[in-house]
Amino acid sequence: MNDEHFMKLAIELAKATQGQTSPNPVVGAVVVKDGAVVGMGAHLKAGQAHAEVHALAMAGEQANGATLYVTLEPCAHYGKTPPCANLVVEKKMKRVVIASTDPNPLVAGKGIAIMKEAGIEIEVGVLEKEATALNDPFFHFIQTKLPFVTLKTATSLDGKTATYTGESKWITGEQARLDVHQLRHQHDAILVGINTVNIDNPSLTTRLPGGGKNPVRVILDTHLNIDEQATILHDQQAPTWIIVGQAAQSKKIEAITNEFVRVIKLPTEQLLLKDVLRILGENGITSLFVEGGSTVHGTFLKEKLFNQMITYIAPKLIGGSKAPTSFGGEGIASMSEVVDLEITLVQQLGQDLKIVAVPKEGETNVYRDY
Amino acid sequence: MNDEHFMKLAIELAKATQGQTSPNPVVGAVVVKDGAVVGMGAHLKAGQAHAEVHALAMAGEQANGATLYVTLEPCAHYGKTPPCANLVVEKKMKRVVIASTDPNPLVAGKGIAIMKEAGIEIEVGVLEKEATALNDPFFHFIQTKLPFVTLKTATSLDGKTATYTGESKWITGEQARLDVHQLRHQHDAILVGINTVNIDNPSLTTRLPGGGKNPVRVILDTHLNIDEQATILHDQQAPTWIIVGQAAQSKKIEAITNEFVRVIKLPTEQLLLKDVLRILGENGITSLFVEGGSTVHGTFLKEKLFNQMITYIAPKLIGGSKAPTSFGGEGIASMSEVVDLEITLVQQLGQDLKIVAVPKEGETNVYRDY
Repeated sequence: MNDEHFMKLAIELAKATQGQTSPNPVVGAVVVKDGAVVGMGAHLKAGQAHAEVHALAMAGEQANGATLYVTLEPCAHYGKTPPCANLVVEKKMKRVVIASTDPNPLVAGKGIAIMKEAGIEIEVGVLEKEATALNDPFFHFIQTKLPFVTLKTATSLDGKTATYTGESKWITGEQARLDVHQLRHQHDAILVGINTVNIDNPSLTTRLPGGGKNPVRVILDTHLNIDEQATILHDQQAPTWIIVGQAAQSKKIEAITNEFVRVIKLPTEQLLLKDVLRILGENGITSLFVEGGSTVHGTFLKEKLFNQMITYIAPKLIGGSKAPTSFGGEGIASMSEVVDLEITLVQQLGQDLKIVAVPKEGETNVYRDY
Repeated sequence: MNDEHFMKLAIELAKATQGQTSPNPVVGAVVVKDGAVVGMGAHLKAGQAHAEVHALAMAGEQANGATLYVTLEPCAHYGKTPPCANLVVEKKMKRVVIASTDPNPLVAGKGIAIMKEAGIEIEVGVLEKEATALNDPFFHFIQTKLPFVTLKTATSLDGKTATYTGESKWITGEQARLDVHQLRHQHDAILVGINTVNIDNPSLTTRLPGGGKNPVRVILDTHLNIDEQATILHDQQAPTWIIVGQAAQSKKIEAITNEFVRVIKLPTEQLLLKDVLRILGENGITSLFVEGGSTVHGTFLKEKLFNQMITYIAPKLIGGSKAPTSFGGEGIASMSEVVDLEITLVQQLGQDLKIVAVPKEGETNVYRDY
């Protein structure tokens, strides 16, 4: 059993809380004494105890002289909870192994300094990449004030999202669809275009066997064309934010606004994606799950404003030169201009494949170099 | 070391000769005495020695009392070589382990009967599925007299084969392109539509670092519109067969026919895919590699006449509602009619993914139930 072994466990604990800690990062902590795990913890929800607090509470007296494995540098600030670095010192721990330092440059290293001063051995960087990946959205938001954008598509093996007649239920199987609901649960907000709302009348909620958190539903609707009977305006299952341009009629805005439905007017006739993301960031949305349709995806591609792409591919052949595909709009003209990604995960989900890919450095207009 | 271990080795030997034994199957053989490998062989080329002959020659005197592992039942007929079953008896072998029996029902079991009669222990079915998969094309051809059809596509992550301006070089990387040439080497024939020839003027040859066998080049060209300057009519690198309909002009047929170029006229105005495959089978084509374009792929999909689909996916986003996709034509109208496949291989090739899938039972009009 080495440091990586216990850090892997801390990462698993952090992973288990993805989707419930926003706007805080996920963090996992493990306390080890004489090779045995004596404490485990994770940060469960913003405003509640940090991972270290839970793990040290479980360890009790055993924390004395033990090693702490934690995925993120223990904090040094008095916020809603007292600083974790001070707690580690107080418990007389011997050694602290950290996956990554705090992404906020104003805070980074402060927790480490407190513990070092108290004579505690510190090791930084064990499984850093894996741990950082868990908090990509959080780190991105901290540094850009913009949500981490994930584009989602589901296509046949020949890249179609529906038959030429428009039928699309169901391309992917149950396991892939469940995975999508898990991702909705993990995101602060979900975004679709007005065509998707007016044609499919979706509920855009998280439907998991054991329940789940509904994301804020964001609709791009430049001219406020939304059907006043749309489910998302009336179901009161989650907040619905409708982003409109200057031309949207005030009368209709008033008519649909209520406790759950908010209309956000941008200062331009046409919606600029940068403005949309900025407004969402200002309203505390740290992660955005973009489910399309193809016009919306086409806009995100054209503006090169996304951090991740998740594609579900079903082993079916639909065919048809007029059958719709996942990215519409004009598209990119030259092969030298297409967006190059790197595949980070390939997973079989039932019959289907899930492919996760991230843009290579310099391929998009978002900042990923943290 | 058990039977599976040595059969795996025999399968590796067979795999190494894929593409060079047509119209014969690939076969591997291993001779084991007292737990040690004393002979190895594979069938290298039609008309030459069978795998067992090579392996027994290497084993020499050691064959006496040894075990033979062979991927396909030893033959019982006097053809270009004497029957292998008799050779096994003559060498006084103790035991023969066979992956699969002969696919030809007229021959199946005859070799086994000869050896059993001589008192040799016989075991059948070890790694049968793996061994059979190696010879899918061969078994299919034996039973249907039609070539085993593999459709190949290469697309971006959003299912496009080119930008909306028509640029397509290069979507996939070098490793994926090399893999395509390996597949050309392994197939008896390659098939493309006349648009591909007249627009891209391809050579359709196998270009591997260490050389390779060129497949017969089959062009679907209903009205014999081929550009008389096309490379494949003049390069003399491989046979070129142009399939035309009744309306093709005799004068042009005469003009382009030569030692390497053959025009095959079908008895209908429009080409019927069933006729095309039948003619190719009659001319000894056991495996056909269909490289498109999208109209040709659309036809194979519409007729549901294919045995396998190989898709290379590059992690790029091209976008565009008018950018071309891999399967054109009208396409399938209803989700209940789309062709369901099963993924049999997912492999990372450099940056790209290779996905191999086969139609599920009953999903196509070819016979796969052997």
